[in-house]
Amino acid sequence: MVHQVKKIAILGSTGSIGQQTLDIVRKFPDRLKVVGLACGNNGVIFEDQLHEFNPKFAFSAGSFPLITVMKPMSMEEIASQPDVDVVVVATTGKAGLGPTISALKAGKTVAIANKEILVMAGELITGMVAQYGSTILPIDSEHCAVWQCLQGESHKISRLLLTASGGPFFGMTKAQLADVTVDEALNHPTWKMGKKVTIDSATLFNKGLEVIEARWLFNIPYDNIEIIIHRQSIIHSMIEFVDGSIKAQLSTPDMHLPIQYALLYPERTANDNIKPLSFNAMQSLTLEPVRYDDFPCLKLALEAAKKGGTYPAVLCAADEVAVDLFINRKTKFLQIAEIIERTMALHKPVPKPSLAEIIESDKWAGETAREIAGKLT
Amino acid sequence: MVHQVKKIAILGSTGSIGQQTLDIVRKFPDRLKVVGLACGNNGVIFEDQLHEFNPKFAFSAGSFPLITVMKPMSMEEIASQPDVDVVVVATTGKAGLGPTISALKAGKTVAIANKEILVMAGELITGMVAQYGSTILPIDSEHCAVWQCLQGESHKISRLLLTASGGPFFGMTKAQLADVTVDEALNHPTWKMGKKVTIDSATLFNKGLEVIEARWLFNIPYDNIEIIIHRQSIIHSMIEFVDGSIKAQLSTPDMHLPIQYALLYPERTANDNIKPLSFNAMQSLTLEPVRYDDFPCLKLALEAAKKGGTYPAVLCAADEVAVDLFINRKTKFLQIAEIIERTMALHKPVPKPSLAEIIESDKWAGETAREIAGKLT
Repeated sequence: MVHQVKKIAILGSTGSIGQQTLDIVRKFPDRLKVVGLACGNNGVIFEDQLHEFNPKFAFSAGSFPLITVMKPMSMEEIASQPDVDVVVVATTGKAGLGPTISALKAGKTVAIANKEILVMAGELITGMVAQYGSTILPIDSEHCAVWQCLQGESHKISRLLLTASGGPFFGMTKAQLADVTVDEALNHPTWKMGKKVTIDSATLFNKGLEVIEARWLFNIPYDNIEIIIHRQSIIHSMIEFVDGSIKAQLSTPDMHLPIQYALLYPERTANDNIKPLSFNAMQSLTLEPVRYDDFPCLKLALEAAKKGGTYPAVLCAADEVAVDLFINRKTKFLQIAEIIERTMALHKPVPKPSLAEIIESDKWAGETAREIAGKLT
Repeated sequence: MVHQVKKIAILGSTGSIGQQTLDIVRKFPDRLKVVGLACGNNGVIFEDQLHEFNPKFAFSAGSFPLITVMKPMSMEEIASQPDVDVVVVATTGKAGLGPTISALKAGKTVAIANKEILVMAGELITGMVAQYGSTILPIDSEHCAVWQCLQGESHKISRLLLTASGGPFFGMTKAQLADVTVDEALNHPTWKMGKKVTIDSATLFNKGLEVIEARWLFNIPYDNIEIIIHRQSIIHSMIEFVDGSIKAQLSTPDMHLPIQYALLYPERTANDNIKPLSFNAMQSLTLEPVRYDDFPCLKLALEAAKKGGTYPAVLCAADEVAVDLFINRKTKFLQIAEIIERTMALHKPVPKPSLAEIIESDKWAGETAREIAGKLT
């Protein structure tokens, strides 16, 4: 079969998802071509990537290593270049919001690995998809699972069962959690990911963001989304249809799979770098209810989800500050929830916010969270 | 939404699947209408069914209770009536073969619950589907699971993982199996089914037949079909695609679900008589390899599958005789395999058999199995 080569821009190419996206490009050079790369501050890795992929367009938030060989431009500009088919948004935090909007307005396909975008601006973003005829694809094991389970189905969904590994601290008491360290929090039992996401997994905050993402990606009401603890990270999510039948997607926990699925969709292609699921890994699959009281960050995320408006943006900004402080050993683990909660409590929400209002709320929440954190003992 | 009413003929309406099919018709009277019913010898239940559904066409192999109100005709005739859209073949053993062929030649949709049809004549039957533009749908939890998992997929399958409950005797030693009784064999841990199928589940013979059915229904090579023991009967089967992603279908073990799926396909519709899967039922899902040496009937079935030709017909006929003798307390449990094995050993196979050759092999195998059984101590 002859395939058209998809031209790809990767925003956040030196992060975990960015690097794995490049693995997929390397594996399928006849199907995928890198035309744009953008990174934050990881100049060393970025230089290697520029040499290897020689993209037409590049952006670096830090010092730029190789300006002579390609055209430097902003992420917003890269995302809307006529020569780009698919924009992979693998930035962290809110950095991907502007470029995503720019790509959607240009009618691009946007593969989103960055949860905050749909969480902060889900209504705006899905409105743009409809308005500009652009496409959003998830790069995320859970949403990719849902997407796969919905293939060929007419969306008669009764429940989305979103699985969660439970992270490294699952089952610990509050007293035990009080003194956990950054290194312990970064030691995720089943997934290798970036630092921010790994801490968000330990607090289950991440799962709250995924609930919000799922609501916007698949138009499933919050009341029909259930989180289930699945320690093995083999079942990546399940969809129950109105007739009582459930479809689940299972695989080795390896982000290459959802990345490849998004980039080569609708084609499934063998990739010998992705290990098939071994029989051993499948021998015992457990599902447990979430004890919400043990995960205050998750409760706050779900509260922000249901309140809507600018609350989810405030949620994200406060978490970004709190997790950054925790990673830099300036707050304790349990204070992450405290900072988010107090920030949310002070927020004066805007319903159906514009992009400017979202950005303003984000800014306010970041500053407020920092102030609150400064006063914590 | 306005739906066309599907006109249905049910062959084997007084059996377990037949009665459950009528439950679905009762539930969706605006979607499904019974125009034909056929039964073996269960006159009492059949009379009630004729009164309730008042079908245009009817057949009974036994004494016929109500010949004045509807037109009696053979199952072959019923299956090919212009007024029939879907033929549900819920007969047991080889009885459904002729009517299935008659329905397929008339271009009907045939929903098959009777495993022996595709096992005995898979190549012939699938050839007819292609020739006459007819359709075969599975009524069976495992094949329905595969069918659901394949929706919207372009069949790039690397493995079919066919689940098996393991039946009531799973884990028993040969010495323990030597003296098991019919009542013990009929006590299936998770499924309520007819007697023949329940005994075939206890020997795992049934799973061998399902492997052969899957090969013909989905065109999956035998080498890519794997049987997995799953004691809970919650995961009804799984498909692994070439990219390493697996889709599974889960539900309460209730045959109403695959029956409804086949009859209302491609529509999924809520049915409050089908219980959704409870969280408790899903808490621990186990998968185990099959120990083939413990299940000689399964080994024989897989051997017949790979040999092909008339072997699968001989396999079915010998099993039908052996299971009947066991149910009537005339042989022991372990002699079921012995009767099948000895019958197969005496068979002179015909490759690519015609219908006549299949029927001849079936007849020969039934007689031979009876002779062999008569000489067993």
